[in-house]
Amino acid sequence: MTSTPGTVYLVGAGPGAPGLATVRAVELVGRAEVLAYDRLAPAELVALAPPGCELVDVGKSASGQAMPQEEIDDLLVGRARAGRNVVRLKGGDPFVFGRGGEEALACVRAGVPFEVVPGVSSALAAPAAAGVPLTHREVAASFAVVTASLAGGAQPDLARLAGAADTLVVLMAAERLEAVCRALVPAGRPARQPAVVVQWAGTDRQRSVRATLGDLPALAAAAGIGPPATLVAGEVAALADLLARAPEADAGPVEAARVLDSSSGPPAR
Amino acid sequence: MTSTPGTVYLVGAGPGAPGLATVRAVELVGRAEVLAYDRLAPAELVALAPPGCELVDVGKSASGQAMPQEEIDDLLVGRARAGRNVVRLKGGDPFVFGRGGEEALACVRAGVPFEVVPGVSSALAAPAAAGVPLTHREVAASFAVVTASLAGGAQPDLARLAGAADTLVVLMAAERLEAVCRALVPAGRPARQPAVVVQWAGTDRQRSVRATLGDLPALAAAAGIGPPATLVAGEVAALADLLARAPEADAGPVEAARVLDSSSGPPAR
Repeated sequence: MTSTPGTVYLVGAGPGAPGLATVRAVELVGRAEVLAYDRLAPAELVALAPPGCELVDVGKSASGQAMPQEEIDDLLVGRARAGRNVVRLKGGDPFVFGRGGEEALACVRAGVPFEVVPGVSSALAAPAAAGVPLTHREVAASFAVVTASLAGGAQPDLARLAGAADTLVVLMAAERLEAVCRALVPAGRPARQPAVVVQWAGTDRQRSVRATLGDLPALAAAAGIGPPATLVAGEVAALADLLARAPEADAGPVEAARVLDSSSGPPAR
Repeated sequence: MTSTPGTVYLVGAGPGAPGLATVRAVELVGRAEVLAYDRLAPAELVALAPPGCELVDVGKSASGQAMPQEEIDDLLVGRARAGRNVVRLKGGDPFVFGRGGEEALACVRAGVPFEVVPGVSSALAAPAAAGVPLTHREVAASFAVVTASLAGGAQPDLARLAGAADTLVVLMAAERLEAVCRALVPAGRPARQPAVVVQWAGTDRQRSVRATLGDLPALAAAAGIGPPATLVAGEVAALADLLARAPEADAGPVEAARVLDSSSGPPAR
């Protein structure tokens, strides 16, 4: 290949609401020559790709399966080597549970220039949508983020993480909510500690349940909370009772971020 | 007060580069009636306020001091009660070390509607700017974020946090870098673990030093790294050697995010 390679842009699309995409993300999608996106990228953002842009849904192949990571890497690198600018649009932030590091390394190995464009991470936006600040003066001065399940079905060492940070965010928590909450208590978090689980955070389908860590799994199950859901445990979760209900909503792309549904559990004390 | 109150928008401005502001942030600033901002909000974003908008720099009073938090709360609530829409523009994300929770509570107490607009947190964008993904398959599946100093000069319990998450991000690390690195090693992080400290992350003044946790304080001091700086410790920090140096830079608002300066320490093994 003798032509100058294009650039691969690894772009965070934010947590889903199109208004939470960055200016730079919108700009790059608007002049993409190739746009590789998956199901976490907002359709409104994908729709900004210019005429003639090659659109590749890497969340779906002809067989209905997601494209394997190595194929995505090959696609990005191959198109860039052919001289085209490639936007890889990823939900949230590309470097936070987004496998952006792997795609960046593929570019480095291939000698293809790349740029990482951070986005609003769902790990931070989902708690905010439920009315929970991750830090709060005299309540929480640190936070940790983990997923409930790892690639290949492995499970994270929740006991190690449990007592460490004031606020703990557990992504993809719905299917393993009882196991996660049960692991956290013996490892150092009080069963009476406030916790929130929020499903479809920041969308108009958002629902959340607030309870103690001990009571949350049963109440969430009773309320029918399923994936995608995020768990937030910590004293800050008690603030959801106040901050998830604003006196008045203003129309806008993130309006749904403040709606707490009626299935919420009782406030913990 | 009998008039309908305005809304207080607690808006994350992102880590500093104007391109990393969200679409919603730009939209809200563009129709703000009152804009309260501080030194972490990008000037380019503040400049989008419409004619007639009241601009309040809460980072500076007539006496040159930052406005106390209670005065900021009173300002936001008072202007909203007078029927005006208020944008409180904060660096990074309003709910991550941004005291947004306090401002939201002030709105709740006053019966003033508010909306939280997440932003790209500097806690995640600074590592990315240094070429460090916070998670990476088979290397890091969790991360924790803490500040090196708390309000009032208190110090966080770094020993408690040290061993918990695979990747540890320490904000405002410059002045206490040696104390922080020294606290982390006995608490469970290997002295040979890769670490990066990045100053002015994502700006054209960005500088970073990569070394082991044990060697980093001396090398950072020798390189003259000062505030504002972020420390990232963990195996992912080794990726900075590869990912902070792209083969070619493309002009853009976040271009500086990939420049690693020549004062970097030796790669750790």
